[in-house]
Order: sequence, then structure tokens, then C-alpha cells
Amino acid sequence: MGSIALGIHGGCGVMPKQELSESDWAAARSDLALALRAGWRVLREDGRAVAAVEAAVVSMEESPYFNAGRGAALTTAGKASLDAAIMDGATLRAGAVSAVERCRNPVRLARALMDEGRTVMMTGPAADRFAETHGLEIVDPEFFIIERQRQALTAMKARRASGTAATASEAEKHGTVGAVALDSAGHLAAATSTGGFTDKPVGRVGDSPIIGAGTYARDGACAVSGTGAGEYFIRHVVGHELASRMAYLKEDLGTAATKIIMVDLSAHGIGAGLVAIDYAGRVVAPYNTMGMYRGWVTTAGEAYVATHETVFPAELH
Amino acid sequence: MGSIALGIHGGCGVMPKQELSESDWAAARSDLALALRAGWRVLREDGRAVAAVEAAVVSMEESPYFNAGRGAALTTAGKASLDAAIMDGATLRAGAVSAVERCRNPVRLARALMDEGRTVMMTGPAADRFAETHGLEIVDPEFFIIERQRQALTAMKARRASGTAATASEAEKHGTVGAVALDSAGHLAAATSTGGFTDKPVGRVGDSPIIGAGTYARDGACAVSGTGAGEYFIRHVVGHELASRMAYLKEDLGTAATKIIMVDLSAHGIGAGLVAIDYAGRVVAPYNTMGMYRGWVTTAGEAYVATHETVFPAELH
Repeated sequence: MGSIALGIHGGCGVMPKQELSESDWAAARSDLALALRAGWRVLREDGRAVAAVEAAVVSMEESPYFNAGRGAALTTAGKASLDAAIMDGATLRAGAVSAVERCRNPVRLARALMDEGRTVMMTGPAADRFAETHGLEIVDPEFFIIERQRQALTAMKARRASGTAATASEAEKHGTVGAVALDSAGHLAAATSTGGFTDKPVGRVGDSPIIGAGTYARDGACAVSGTGAGEYFIRHVVGHELASRMAYLKEDLGTAATKIIMVDLSAHGIGAGLVAIDYAGRVVAPYNTMGMYRGWVTTAGEAYVATHETVFPAELH
Repeated sequence: MGSIALGIHGGCGVMPKQELSESDWAAARSDLALALRAGWRVLREDGRAVAAVEAAVVSMEESPYFNAGRGAALTTAGKASLDAAIMDGATLRAGAVSAVERCRNPVRLARALMDEGRTVMMTGPAADRFAETHGLEIVDPEFFIIERQRQALTAMKARRASGTAATASEAEKHGTVGAVALDSAGHLAAATSTGGFTDKPVGRVGDSPIIGAGTYARDGACAVSGTGAGEYFIRHVVGHELASRMAYLKEDLGTAATKIIMVDLSAHGIGAGLVAIDYAGRVVAPYNTMGMYRGWVTTAGEAYVATHETVFPAELH
């Protein structure tokens, strides 16, 4: 069997080190390592890349440190409205959901849609009903709301009302979680899940559930999951742009990803990052912000997690 | 000022000539010509390509012959649930909406989102509220429902219940309307609007509002609007794939569009078509189905409309 590798991210943005205590940063890194283990377990047992990225993303949806599932950023109406997608690079099959409010793990819902094979994208209450009829766990919308995000919403509304510059900085926290993987059969997959951003307009859909933008996978090219100001990822069709540059311009993964983040997206003055993997299992995680929650396991089986420049080894067992 | 050109489509699919009377086919062609005139009027007066594609699509949304706006296909719940998008190739700005139920012209709503510049994509009741607060016309959901589509839904449900093969054939009617344009300043734009397909699951979002899939425009490359089994357009990121093949493989518009429709999408055994325009104003409208409602105006100012093989000259005045 071939090489396996995995990459994850937990969002990029303005992340001043003083914002969290040392023990909180350590706990966030620990949750990144947990997600790596969830995905790696699947890959190591010759599971499929789609199953690995789903497992890694579910793990981060469950962590309160990341803006997805429980702990999601809240809309201007004070609710969690969740977007997610998954794509199988082997078949180009995909599933995507937007404005989910009751399904505990939106990435599982995206996966269920993909597996059903009829509809790629579903939105709103109908998506939650699909989850329900397909046996996925349904929770009260309150489940997703944690105190930290409630405070963030209150603070953001106050700043917006007073028109302070801090609004922009606060808005530069692009919480999103995502994973990309190469499995032992040589297939690629990507998955992404998010609550969007604090105080987002009700009904706003970001790039995460847009196949080709925030989530994309194609065997022979790459798998990618984005984080950042989603509107720009949509307009630049970031995931498919990365694959196109590799396939048609013969750029390597690092060159293409760096160009997109540091040139195309940075030109808009917005925060952006992504994690991507190529057909050979090379992982890149470029970002143009202060930090990005991220982790990866190399084809040699070495695991790492990071939030800022410093990279920490992680335990896979 | 430079050349101007315009292309439109009103959907592709299984369209047996005996399905409509001669006078109905003529009326449909007449409505295609009306849409061409609406778009051409904008371009001729040195208006912007985005304004031209919006005007052409609004015109088709208003026509009962096309599956968009009034006359849209109905969901399995018997309602119209509308998707639309617009993209400005000059700036890569875009607007997109899904699951709209009350805004009379979803493409105008997509345009309003694009102009507001904050959110690219909005879904569900919030999108209708956005339309309302931005002064767009709101209608009772019944407004969209025409008797022919009500009958189509009844017939489809009956066929589905009896499991007849005709279901598949019926489902191959991919009503969608779209327009692409080159304006005298050399800018490209694309817009698409649709009701999806008869008996579609509630909450299903097709490719039309997915920037990069069913709708895409980029100056220097092309503008494109798709029609067909939307799930496959999403998976193949059709619009951006067309632009990538042109920009990176240096394929011409016709070669790239033919490859995508006749090879990539036809491989799935699905119906697909598109209308696209390049930086020089060349228009192509390939389809792999029995017919496709379409029309175009060349840079020489010659206008044509067609539903099947035969192409009819159209009046622009």
C-alpha cells in the first residue's frame, strides 16, 4: 500500500498570544493532536481518505476551541448557523450543507448527502431534517452555544455600535476547521466545517460549503480546505484554482498555494490560510495572518501541531 | 470603444418537438429574443456587462417559458425555491442566493448582494428579507407557480410512484436561464437563475448560485452560465474549469467548452449545456441534449435564437 498523510487546520486570524493563557494554548494544541489522531487512526488501518477527514473534522467540531459545531461563532441573531462540506478526490463526489442549526456534526451531514448521491448541496431546515431522517444526532440549537462565543458576540456588537477599529481586528478571526488526507490507496479527500464569523448576517453562506472554493479534492492534483474571509475564497474559487495551477501549469503544491494566499488573496488585504495535500502526501499550510491553528502528519508518520510560528511535535498514540 | 457581444440560454434537456405546439416554440423563441434585446440595449449604450446579463436574466425570469422566476419548476413540496447568481469579471465581485421564495427576481437580489459587497452568498428567508430591505419587489410565493409546472409536478410524482422509466427522461429537463456578456469597456459578466428541477428535494441547492460552478466570469478569460444536472457542474467546478483551461492550457473557448460538456460531463451520462463568451466576444453554446433554448448577438450585431438544431435570426429592435 502507498504512503498516507494528513493535514488539518482550526482557523487563521489575528491571534495575539496574550489572548489565551499558556494552558489554554496548550489545550488547543492538544485538541489539534486529538483531531490528528482521529484522522490518522483511519488512514493507518487502510481506511479511506474521506473517512479520515470526516473523523478529524468531527473531532474539531466537538472541541470548544474551534469555530465549528459546539463553540461556533454566533450570527447577529445569537444563533449558530453552520456550514460544512466534504469531497472525495477519487470520484469527485461531494456533499455540502449551509445554515444548519440542529445537526450536531455538520460534516457528517455533508458526508451523508455525499453517500446518498442525489443532492450535493442542501440548505436550511431541510438539511437538518435530512440529518434526522438519516440517523444523525440532532441537538437543541443551544448545544452549540458556549459562553466565550456569547461574549464575543456581545463585544462585537458593542464595538460595532461605537465604531471602534477593534471591530476589524476582531473580524479577522477566521475560525473554520478543515482536514485533507491521502490514503493508502492513493486517494485524496478534503472536509471543512465552520460557524462563519461572529455577528455574521443571518443566512450568510461562506466558502466552506462551496465545492471548489473552501473545500476541494481531486486525485492526481490536491485536496484543500480554506480558512479566511470566505467571500474572497468564493470569488477566487481557491480550491479549484490550486488544483488547476498544479494540473495545468505544473506548479508544485507549495508554489501554487503560496501564490494564492500571499498574492491573490493578500492583495485584498484580507486574512487567509489553507491546508492542502498533494498526490504524494506533501502537506502545506500557508497563512498570511498572525497565526493559524494547524497540524499535520507526514508520510514518515511524524506529527506536528502549531498555532503560531513554533511547531510542536505531537503524539499519535 | 471595443466590441460588444451577448449570449443567453434558457435551459437544455429532453425537448421533443411534439411537446410544444409550433406557436409555443415560436413564442419561446420570441421570449429569447426579448431577453437578447434587454441585454443588448444595455451594451449598445455602453452599459456594463453586469447590467446587461442582469437585464437579460430578469427578462427570462419574467417569461413563463423558462424555469426561473415565474414559471419555475416546483419542489417536491409544491413550492418555487429559487437560486441565482451574478458575477462581474472585471472585479471578481459576485452575488449569489439560494432557496429564495418571495423575491420576484432572484438575479436582482444576487446583484444587490454583489453591490452591497459584504456577503457573496445568502440563503433562505434571510435572502428574501435582504431583498425586502433593499427595495426589491416581493411577491406572494403563489406568484411563481404556473399551471404547467403544477401539472409537471403531479405527473412526475405519479411517474415516480409507478417507477416508470419516463421519470429519468422528465428529469432531464434542466430548466435554468443564464446570460454572458462582453461590454464596450472590455469587461465580462455572467448571471444565472433557476428553479432547479421538478420534484426537487426541499433545500436542494444546484450549481447556478455556486460561483465557479454554474456561474463564473473573469476578464481576460471568459464568462459562463451552465444548465444541466447541477450536481455534476458543482463537482466539476465547470465555470472555473473553463476559465482555467483557457488561461493555463491556452485552449480557445470552443475547445475548452466542448471538452467539458462532451467529455467531462457526458461521461456521467447526464444532460449538460452552457453558454460562454470570451474576452473577444466569441460566444459558444454547446449542449449534449436534444435541445437547448439559446440566443446570442455577435460582435457584428447579428442576433440569433434557437431551441434545437435550426438557428433563427432575431430582431434586435
